[in-house]
Amino acid sequence: MTHPRYTELAQSLPASVPFVGPEAQERAQGRRFDARLGANESVFGPSPRAIAAMQAAAAEAWMYGDPTNFDLKEALAAHHGITPDALTVGEGIDGLLGVLVRLLIAPGDTVVTSDGAYPTFNYHVAGFGGQLVKVPYRDDHEDPDALVAAAIEHKAKLVYLANPDNPMGTWLPAKRITAMLAALPEGCLLCLDEAYADFAPTQAIPPLDTTDPRLVRMRTFSKAYGMAGARVGYAIGAPELVQSFDKVRNHFGVNRIAQAGALAALGDQGWMDKVRADVATARDEIGAIAARHGLRALPSATNFVAVDCGAEGDFARKVLAGLVSRGVFARMPFVAPQDRCIRVSAGRPEDLAHFKAALGPALADARST
Amino acid sequence: MTHPRYTELAQSLPASVPFVGPEAQERAQGRRFDARLGANESVFGPSPRAIAAMQAAAAEAWMYGDPTNFDLKEALAAHHGITPDALTVGEGIDGLLGVLVRLLIAPGDTVVTSDGAYPTFNYHVAGFGGQLVKVPYRDDHEDPDALVAAAIEHKAKLVYLANPDNPMGTWLPAKRITAMLAALPEGCLLCLDEAYADFAPTQAIPPLDTTDPRLVRMRTFSKAYGMAGARVGYAIGAPELVQSFDKVRNHFGVNRIAQAGALAALGDQGWMDKVRADVATARDEIGAIAARHGLRALPSATNFVAVDCGAEGDFARKVLAGLVSRGVFARMPFVAPQDRCIRVSAGRPEDLAHFKAALGPALADARST
Repeated sequence: MTHPRYTELAQSLPASVPFVGPEAQERAQGRRFDARLGANESVFGPSPRAIAAMQAAAAEAWMYGDPTNFDLKEALAAHHGITPDALTVGEGIDGLLGVLVRLLIAPGDTVVTSDGAYPTFNYHVAGFGGQLVKVPYRDDHEDPDALVAAAIEHKAKLVYLANPDNPMGTWLPAKRITAMLAALPEGCLLCLDEAYADFAPTQAIPPLDTTDPRLVRMRTFSKAYGMAGARVGYAIGAPELVQSFDKVRNHFGVNRIAQAGALAALGDQGWMDKVRADVATARDEIGAIAARHGLRALPSATNFVAVDCGAEGDFARKVLAGLVSRGVFARMPFVAPQDRCIRVSAGRPEDLAHFKAALGPALADARST
Repeated sequence: MTHPRYTELAQSLPASVPFVGPEAQERAQGRRFDARLGANESVFGPSPRAIAAMQAAAAEAWMYGDPTNFDLKEALAAHHGITPDALTVGEGIDGLLGVLVRLLIAPGDTVVTSDGAYPTFNYHVAGFGGQLVKVPYRDDHEDPDALVAAAIEHKAKLVYLANPDNPMGTWLPAKRITAMLAALPEGCLLCLDEAYADFAPTQAIPPLDTTDPRLVRMRTFSKAYGMAGARVGYAIGAPELVQSFDKVRNHFGVNRIAQAGALAALGDQGWMDKVRADVATARDEIGAIAARHGLRALPSATNFVAVDCGAEGDFARKVLAGLVSRGVFARMPFVAPQDRCIRVSAGRPEDLAHFKAALGPALADARST
């Protein structure tokens, strides 16, 4: 018998995965987490209207969803004041990033990102054989000047920037993005990941100009809308670009229940306002808990807070392990110097009480080993 | 300004889509379909237990689904009597086919299928630059001998076969599949699409041998389980092969509500039995309606029936148009000679009443033009 003949590229890829989910950690530990604060999910939940819409749609799950996501695109277009042809909907930003990379990147093509930015983007670039060039963060912010310089030097086809940033929670003003676009080399596309845009100050968000072929923006129902498990994201860009997704995407890939939920969630901006307020309260509380232990919380324009543990990455990794072993799911940046921090998602008071109870012992353990 | 630089492959791809959804047809016609019998969805719906599980999971949609699909894989493994490492779960068979093709097919690699078989498979092959070789059906069945001969002649890496077949509803005995495997050339993988396996006679299903690296089998919750909108499919094969999906798949791509629904659906095999009985009744009724108009229904091992309209494809296309314009969503095979048929999904009595009412006038119209 013979094994299948994989492509050269597939053979070269590692079996590694971008993220280990909390369920795998729970199985390994033999207990459930008391607080789920590691994946920047919104524990405040989806809008009650979205929940009701999904419950109503459950009995209709025998039907495929509309492959064009027509109703959702119409509603999103109205919400953003753009035309539906400047939108495409996909299985979360993760799915959309995969399609985008596939359309642009062939083996050997260069892509620029920040060292320590979103691993799943890097996963897709590697998965299509792209060459990743990484530039360092600057003062815990992604650095547009360095990204542009690397794009010019390496003739990059694609540059990735998250604003607000994950995992640090920092943000750049819109005028820096606009200036960056103007400085990009010919034929280089900026992928602006705005997963956390709904939490950001308005000054962080460039105007939506869907005539600009240099820019594609990623948005999601996973964060402020509280629907990470639904897998609905969307890309905004020039119609020619976003419609090219139709050439390769999984047309029936978006869950029908999720389509109904996203539509209802979009229609309940009051819920979003409540979530924003809850998140602001939670960020303050995370900062206060950190300060009580002499740690500094970075200012955040997202639904999570990076807490500087004040030492090298090895120390922060011990603190994180101490939180996890005490029932608090959290994560941390992967690379130095950002990995001096742990990253804690906004939670309800009862979630943050677990964090509060676990942080002291976790720090004590980390300091004693 | 410059447009993004697409890959050569992406530039070469057409903007066409594998299927137009019924919602797009409804929008074009300005009315809803009275009967939705075109996509082999199960109008009998998901198990009530699956609906209840999805409704309960809706409020938990703020959490990402388990990226390993652990619980579902464990349950599927127990159900099929295999080990979980011989399974991978994805966003429907469509999503899994895309991953499979991506792992095996680089530009110029050859893939063999039947002319008129599943268009979405062909879409993925084209999307990765593969060269499709198509062999004709033989007496409304896919033809293993022709598929093997073409695989040998063209040194194919991958062969696609659906059993039972879509769009004809016919089936091959398991021993033909087993013989086909033995005859495949070195390094050629058989993708056996068993989306309709739950409706097939047991003699159609080869034993599950997950040590065989020449075979990968696709199963789904979209058909007999009545959860097309949930987007949950799975592949069964040698662990080395199915685990390689982890190298490139969208790890968080499966909807959390869908995971809960699939798990509950799997646990309610009594519902599946009821659906099988309802489908058998519906097939008989479709056959009876066809016979009343002098048309022949092909024997079916699926939840749909191909009805031979007794003339060339142009005639069947007119009949189909007549059904669609009368509120009955149906489809038909794309290529000759199979396109002498229309394809009607099993429905409830009230759905088939619409088909019954529309078929006579549709035939009369087709005969008069």
